[in-house]
Amino acid sequence: MKIAVKVLPREEVLDSQGRAVEKTLEHNNMAVDHCRIGKYIVLDFSEDDVTKAKEKATEIANSLLHNPLIEQFELEVL
Amino acid sequence: MKIAVKVLPREEVLDSQGRAVEKTLEHNNMAVDHCRIGKYIVLDFSEDDVTKAKEKATEIANSLLHNPLIEQFELEVL
Repeated sequence: MKIAVKVLPREEVLDSQGRAVEKTLEHNNMAVDHCRIGKYIVLDFSEDDVTKAKEKATEIANSLLHNPLIEQFELEVL
Repeated sequence: MKIAVKVLPREEVLDSQGRAVEKTLEHNNMAVDHCRIGKYIVLDFSEDDVTKAKEKATEIANSLLHNPLIEQFELEVL
């Protein structure tokens, strides 16, 4: 089964990529109120049990995929 | 309203970041079958109409957020 890990910069952290995209959108008449940019990681497990797969995904996200000082993550079962 | 753009490398394109994470996970006894790494972009619109906001998000994703040669994207209404 597939589980996606959505990693985003924390609200209190300056998201320079997001700011850059906001400015470019403004200059191209496609302005948005706010933009945040993070990572989207799809993990494919042989595991079929949702709970176990989510546990594994959380372990992987905590140990390798996100930096808790500046990022937060959410899981999405696909 | 918020709309997320999930950008992933196309299946036929070599995803070097994904391969690197797969190998690291294997070395740390957390192997997964497959891993793909892309971008996760949250756009915040003043627009309240879902259809219009999705149209704008599609336009933005097509013109600025993804490279159709090597990437594909999906929208997610948050």
